[in-house]
Amino acid sequence: MLDRAVRVLQAFDAHHARLSVSALAERAALPRTTAYRLVSQMTDLGLLTRLPDGTYRLGLMLWEMATRSTDAQDLATAALPFMEDVNQVVRHSTQLSILDGGEVLILERLSRPGHAVNPARRAARMPVHLTSMGMVLLAHAAAADLEAYLARHRETVTAKHPELRRELDHIRRQGFASFTSFIDPDTTGISVPVLDQRGRALAALSVVVPIQYDAAPSAVMSLRTAARAISRTMDTGRR
Amino acid sequence: MLDRAVRVLQAFDAHHARLSVSALAERAALPRTTAYRLVSQMTDLGLLTRLPDGTYRLGLMLWEMATRSTDAQDLATAALPFMEDVNQVVRHSTQLSILDGGEVLILERLSRPGHAVNPARRAARMPVHLTSMGMVLLAHAAAADLEAYLARHRETVTAKHPELRRELDHIRRQGFASFTSFIDPDTTGISVPVLDQRGRALAALSVVVPIQYDAAPSAVMSLRTAARAISRTMDTGRR
Repeated sequence: MLDRAVRVLQAFDAHHARLSVSALAERAALPRTTAYRLVSQMTDLGLLTRLPDGTYRLGLMLWEMATRSTDAQDLATAALPFMEDVNQVVRHSTQLSILDGGEVLILERLSRPGHAVNPARRAARMPVHLTSMGMVLLAHAAAADLEAYLARHRETVTAKHPELRRELDHIRRQGFASFTSFIDPDTTGISVPVLDQRGRALAALSVVVPIQYDAAPSAVMSLRTAARAISRTMDTGRR
Repeated sequence: MLDRAVRVLQAFDAHHARLSVSALAERAALPRTTAYRLVSQMTDLGLLTRLPDGTYRLGLMLWEMATRSTDAQDLATAALPFMEDVNQVVRHSTQLSILDGGEVLILERLSRPGHAVNPARRAARMPVHLTSMGMVLLAHAAAADLEAYLARHRETVTAKHPELRRELDHIRRQGFASFTSFIDPDTTGISVPVLDQRGRALAALSVVVPIQYDAAPSAVMSLRTAARAISRTMDTGRR
């Protein structure tokens, strides 16, 4: 029962924000009659909201719970003022991300009109091995997490990063990762780790700059300064 | 089953972000054995996360779903750049809120060190009749929603707003609500509606300024300008 309800919730995403019961049944792989019963029950509980046109959205309750008390939200809230500082100083898109399930999950993103193209959005997921965020997170991950990642992604890693371990050592030593044209041909991503007390990456703090940007070393200094402030805030905030 | 899972989820809030199974059992009013079984199942499904100290938090999955595709998040995302404009121009806390279940729910809030005291936080709820946000939302609500609110809150309203209908007429005519010292003795809240195509309030856009602030009319102009931009963005974004 609970697993089917979760499948209904997961049928929604940014491209499928509103769904009819029959679309829900299909996306959640449920018989139509089961979907009708479940959707009605979930609507009564506030997990779903029925819109005037008869379609459904995720309920406000989920947003409210997730915003009040998740790790993701704590980190985003702590980081936001320092991300604004970077955004004002570097004047390019600034984002915060974590490693989850072998992918990069964007927790927060600040942008302005005129910034370099940047496909990242809040709550979007991106591949680890194609982003400076992912590479800096991997370089500062616990050894067991790195091995688990390598075991699962050996083929893609071999194609893009034949010398991955050496590359990660280099990133760890220099304290930042910078990749050009991996996701978008016209941009460079620059990322530094936000470290916890044991020196592991809690998150990556990044800017996405145009490819012809010539102030990368300055952007790294801005990112490293803000990342230290975020680390300190997270330590203080720990209960 | 589903209703008990929702009770477990709702046991978490900003003040109870991490809970042991026994605390969860108590807050969700569930027998301890039921709570153990349910928590284990919810953890397997990703609804909860087990922390190293054996307590639980809400799972990342909830944050991810809610951030990707809820009405609340759409509105906050559309409003954020315009809220930053107000925050830069007025230089005081700026917030966006909606009416939900007879309460004000804060969707987004921008603040800076040195701003006036402001107890509002993202996803916090506040009483309608004590806030300029709530009063401007009520003044621009559908007639049926206003009557429902009055029917449920007659006593508190009578104590604080004996002439509520006249007060709401006034707010509707002047296009903004301003209240001093209702929540905090040293601050004034100023709110304008973000209107939909039928002239109903989709949200309230507000600033919280110190009580001795003498530029309230200018703040109203900034808020009205930004509120129009948010309305237009929401109209364009409607699918």
